[in-house]
This record gives sequence, structure tokens and C-alpha cells, in this order.
Amino acid sequence: MNFELPAQFAQFGDARKEGFLRVKRIKEAGGKVAGTFCTFTPQEILDAAGISPVSLCGMSEETIPAAEAHLPKNMCPLIKSSYGFAVSDKCPYTYFSDIIVGETTCDGKKKMYELLGQMKDVYLLHLPQGERETALENWTGEVKRFRRFLEDRFGQPIPDEAIREAARKRNRERQIRRRLMELQKNDPPVSTGYAIYKALEGAGFYFNVEEICQKLTELADSLEADYAAGKRPVSGSAKRILITGCPIGGVLEKTVKAIENAGGVVVCFENCSGIKATLDDVDAEAEDITAAVAEKYLKIGCAVMTPDDRRMDLLRRLIAEYRADGVVEIDLQACTTYGVESFSVKKLCEGQGVPYMAIETDYSQSDSGQLATRLEAFLEML
Amino acid sequence: MNFELPAQFAQFGDARKEGFLRVKRIKEAGGKVAGTFCTFTPQEILDAAGISPVSLCGMSEETIPAAEAHLPKNMCPLIKSSYGFAVSDKCPYTYFSDIIVGETTCDGKKKMYELLGQMKDVYLLHLPQGERETALENWTGEVKRFRRFLEDRFGQPIPDEAIREAARKRNRERQIRRRLMELQKNDPPVSTGYAIYKALEGAGFYFNVEEICQKLTELADSLEADYAAGKRPVSGSAKRILITGCPIGGVLEKTVKAIENAGGVVVCFENCSGIKATLDDVDAEAEDITAAVAEKYLKIGCAVMTPDDRRMDLLRRLIAEYRADGVVEIDLQACTTYGVESFSVKKLCEGQGVPYMAIETDYSQSDSGQLATRLEAFLEML
Repeated sequence: MNFELPAQFAQFGDARKEGFLRVKRIKEAGGKVAGTFCTFTPQEILDAAGISPVSLCGMSEETIPAAEAHLPKNMCPLIKSSYGFAVSDKCPYTYFSDIIVGETTCDGKKKMYELLGQMKDVYLLHLPQGERETALENWTGEVKRFRRFLEDRFGQPIPDEAIREAARKRNRERQIRRRLMELQKNDPPVSTGYAIYKALEGAGFYFNVEEICQKLTELADSLEADYAAGKRPVSGSAKRILITGCPIGGVLEKTVKAIENAGGVVVCFENCSGIKATLDDVDAEAEDITAAVAEKYLKIGCAVMTPDDRRMDLLRRLIAEYRADGVVEIDLQACTTYGVESFSVKKLCEGQGVPYMAIETDYSQSDSGQLATRLEAFLEML
Repeated sequence: MNFELPAQFAQFGDARKEGFLRVKRIKEAGGKVAGTFCTFTPQEILDAAGISPVSLCGMSEETIPAAEAHLPKNMCPLIKSSYGFAVSDKCPYTYFSDIIVGETTCDGKKKMYELLGQMKDVYLLHLPQGERETALENWTGEVKRFRRFLEDRFGQPIPDEAIREAARKRNRERQIRRRLMELQKNDPPVSTGYAIYKALEGAGFYFNVEEICQKLTELADSLEADYAAGKRPVSGSAKRILITGCPIGGVLEKTVKAIENAGGVVVCFENCSGIKATLDDVDAEAEDITAAVAEKYLKIGCAVMTPDDRRMDLLRRLIAEYRADGVVEIDLQACTTYGVESFSVKKLCEGQGVPYMAIETDYSQSDSGQLATRLEAFLEML
């Protein structure tokens, strides 16, 4: 398989590279930037406040040694990398952030934000611990508190209509992201999973929601047209893999690329940058628009929630819809919530009759060879 | 130092050994038992419901391999041990429990309870994520929900007066536990820390609160009388150590005993079985007694809370009150919340001018020698 990104995808790689300049321009034009870490962050509230959200999730091992001066070594590489970027002042996005928005998802992030808060201005959203009759009410209260905080902090009221408008735009973005991902339902799929992932990730760096929608629509149109014209960039014999688990931005090459190098193709990403967060829209016409925003985000099925039935239900559905031949769970080192939940995912896959494999990895390259071998063996077995 | 438990302490060791028989007798007499895991569990609600709480926290490595068939290896030994006891049916307390009460404290326990719930009847309390203006209201709601659950589950109303009476009794228990621990403020202290810890731990296995109070009062009276009569079981030159961090029941020998073997003496335990949970009483005369119970428990300073100012304030106070020469933090392997927080504890100790040492350990004996050497070096340095 060819791993140069096809021409249609190239601009998304550029978007990421140019992201720093875009943020700099936003700031120079008097704009505001909020660093975020999680798909639970209600983007519509930031949008409506005129603040551009930018993901600060660290994807490089370069800054981990700096983080380990303060944080335990035996900890999630994403958290260490992110904190390392902040503490070593190596991340322009962190540098440019007027505010950093954290959330009490996992223990590691929850506690890391305390240390980050000693360096930067951090606002913490308290996420419910799981499904509970009070969860939506509590989370709605948190989102409203966040809205009030931003109004006070930046001295500008956030009108309901601005949130509605942001919700309509973000709904369009989610819609086009879903459309792009759903093209992979084709057999064979329209693209490598690697290229799709890079596009989904890169699109975020346009910052402007309309631009994101336009670029992703062009890409989906072009892939669809090529496919209709008979182009088949992926072999029909490639085993169809569904990826689940932790955020994989920092381990993409040694997992997704390794799968596709070994003759598989990733047809679905049931994780943070993939389908999970784009699945539900905000009811932009709801009477209480802030509550509607809260409701959308609480529907995300994540292992930090107990129980996490939403993830299990979604997995069952996606395995069928994307006709997955195998499920690969990619968990980051020391991620307790996904680590414990992987036992349930394994049982779910057994119940569905789909082979399952779990990988636990970090941001180093030391296990690349071993992972490649294990993934090859898994694909051969399918 | 002599590590046979002094005569006054011996019965507490017996209490633990005989705990199984006591629980069996409770059950045979038609009583009910609730397995618990955490000091956040509101005991007064269980007491008032006529249910005897018993701690299920695993302290043995024996059951860890059984747990690792379902749980990640890289996880807290206390959680793995506890789960292993349940899954291998080796714990009579788990076996006898009519209900197991969990709480969403750390990620590991939160997610482990999901698997435990497939074997046993588990009720989960949702603890707030930290300090927040809504935290007490939410937690009070949880404690009330728990009360209603027990009423429905066991078909017996729990009268307010029963909770008040339970609170008065538990207040007396906390009071005598505090009194016993405060005897260690003497210079030299009245006992080894090891013996005090064993008494505090063993007392819980009498189950009957009045009996706990009576036995601990007798012990404190006797230690006080001996001290007044000039007995000094601990050398005046022993360095005074304050222990902080995770629950240490499973690592007591290779940490506390090692410290006291090396010529130190543990004067204070700022952890789950020590001072933390006994510090605050319930206002038994409060108008809303369930809310008063909730309020007491929410005051526990634990690393699962963000921020954890209560722990930091308490540490500062205890270091001064117990005139600690050094602080040893004992964290269990892969405990993210305490692991991250240890950086803040280290800084706090530096600010107080008290040497600090952090240990991360599990339930194996493989690091006993290394820990003994490190602890000796630390004590020599003081």
C-alpha cells in the first residue's frame, strides 16, 4: 500500500503544519484561544464566546522527560507529553492560549491540571462519574457555570443566539466528519484509514468551522467521485479493522500504519478523534440551548464513565455497520479506565464472533517492531 | 526494637483472626453484612440499617494472579488483591456480604466495581470529583439515595433517630481512635507506630462499635498509665516519622516495620486507616442528619479530590503537631492520584523544612531489601 498521502489529503497535513501561523494570526487580530484536551469540552460555548478552541493533547515523546520531573513515570504518555509541552514552553498553542479548559475525566488528567494550573490559567469542568439520574442536571450546571465564567473572565455576554449559531455550525462539521468516515463502509473502503485519520485530525487546525466543513466536503466529494469512477485505492482482500480505545494521535505510525502495512485496512475509528464525538448533534432549536449542548456531550461513550454502556452499544453497532473482520484496541500505557474496560470489550467481541486484540503502548519507538509482528500475526489469523 | 506486639496489643491481632467467626455469627443470628472499600463509605447509614460494615480491601498478593486474568497487571495491588479475593471466592467477608458498597473514588476502583458487579451485588456511591460549590449538595443527594436504596433493598425504614444514634456511637469511636493516635505526640512516643497501626486496624474486626470503643479505651488507658509510670518502650533518640499516602495494610512490614527496624518510629499515619477519616465527627443533632453524615465524609482529604487542599492543610498541621523529623510517602504501584500529588507533598515538606521520601511499592516481597536500604539511608540522613 502506498503511504504518501493521496493528493486530496495533502492539504490537511499542511493545515496542521500551518496551524501555528493561523493561531498567531488569530491572536494578532485580537482573537482569543482556548487550549483544550478532551472531546467532552463543549466547543459551542467557546465558539459563541468568540474563542477558538485548539487541542493541546501532546503527541510527541520529546517533552516527556521534562514532564517526568514532576509526574510519575508510570503514567499515560499523552498526559506526560501535554504537560511536558507546557512546562518546557515548547508548545506555541499552549503559549498562545488565553485559557486552558480541563475536565475531570481520568485521574491522570484531573490531577495533572492541578500542576498545570500553577503555570497557566486553567478552568476545570467537573464531569459526572457516570450514568446517574442526576448526571445530566449536574453536567448542565457545569456547562452553565463555564458559560458564566467565560462571560466574567472576558467581559462579554454570550447570547443564546450565538450558542445556537455555533451549534448549527458544529452540527454541520460533525455531519461532514461522519459522512467522510462512513465512506469507509464501502467494500473495499474508499481510502486507507491512515489517510482518513490524518484528514480528520488536520481539519481541526483550520480553526474556522466553515473552512473545516468546506475542506472536508471537498475531500468527501472527491473520494466519492473517484470511487464512482471505479478507483479502488484499497485492495478488496484487505481485512477490515475497527480501532477502539484511547486517543492514538501519538502512536498512529506504529499501530494504524503497521496494520495497513500488513495488508489490513482501518475502516472505523471508535475513539476520540473518530466517530465517538461526532455521533450526536446539538438540538440547536432547544428551549434551553446551554442544556442542549450539555446533553450532546454527555452522550459520548468513554471509559471514564461508569458504567460505559454507550461505548459498548456503539461498538456492537459499528462492528456490524462497518463489517469489521477484527477489532484492535489501542490503549496508552497506564490508562486505567480503558485498561480495565478492555476485558469487557474483549468479551463483547467474542460475543459478536469478531477477533479482538489489545495493544498497550506509549510514545517511544522501542516496541514498534514487536507491535508490527503482533499485528501481522493478528491479520494473518483473520 | 522489639516487634512482638506488647501484651496490651495482642488482642487486636486476635480480633482480626477471629473476625471471620464474628461475621459468621452475625450472619447466623440473622444479621446483615456490607462489604466496603473506602473511608468515604458513610458507615452511620449502614449501622442505622442494622448492617455491619466490613472492609474488603485486599492486603495479600496471593489473589493477584487470579485478578490479573481480568484486570491490567499495571494496576494498584489493593484493587487487584480485592478483586482477586472475590473472583477466586477466597474471602469469607466477600462471601458473607449481603451487599458490596463501592464509590467512584479512583479510576481503578470505579472500573473494577463494574466487573465485581457481575459476580456480586454492588451498590455504587458517586463521589464528587473535588471541591465545588455543588459538591456537598450532590454528595448529600448520593447519601440520601443510598439510604433509600438500603430501605428498599432490605425492606426496612431507616429512622432518623437510628442514624443519630449511629453517629453518636461512631463519634465516640473516632474520638477514642484520635486519642490513641495522639498519644504518639509524646516525646518519645508511647509505642511503636507498628503496634498502634495494628490496634487501629484490628479494632475494626470487633464490628460492634461499643466493643471497639471499650477495647481501644482500655488500650489507651493502659499506655497512658505505663507512660506516666515512666515506661518508655521507644527510645528518645528515635527519629519521628510521619507516614502519608495510600492505604498501607498490605505493605506494613516492608515499610513501617522497616522504618522502626532502622531506628525510626512512626508517630503519625496521615492515611486511610490513620488520622484522616477520624478527624471530623458527625453533628448528631443536626436538623438533617443524613446531610450531616454526608458533610462529615466529604471533609476527608484524599488525592482523588481536586484540588486536595484538605490533605495539604492537614499534613502541614500534623507535621507540626507530631514534631515529625521526616515524612515518608507510601504509594501503591500505579496509584495515579497519589502519584501525581506526591510532587505537591514533596514541595510542601520542603517548605516546612522537613525531609521527604516517596516510596512506590506493591504487595510482592521483591523490593523489601531495597526498601529497607533506602529507608535506612533516609533515617541516617535525618
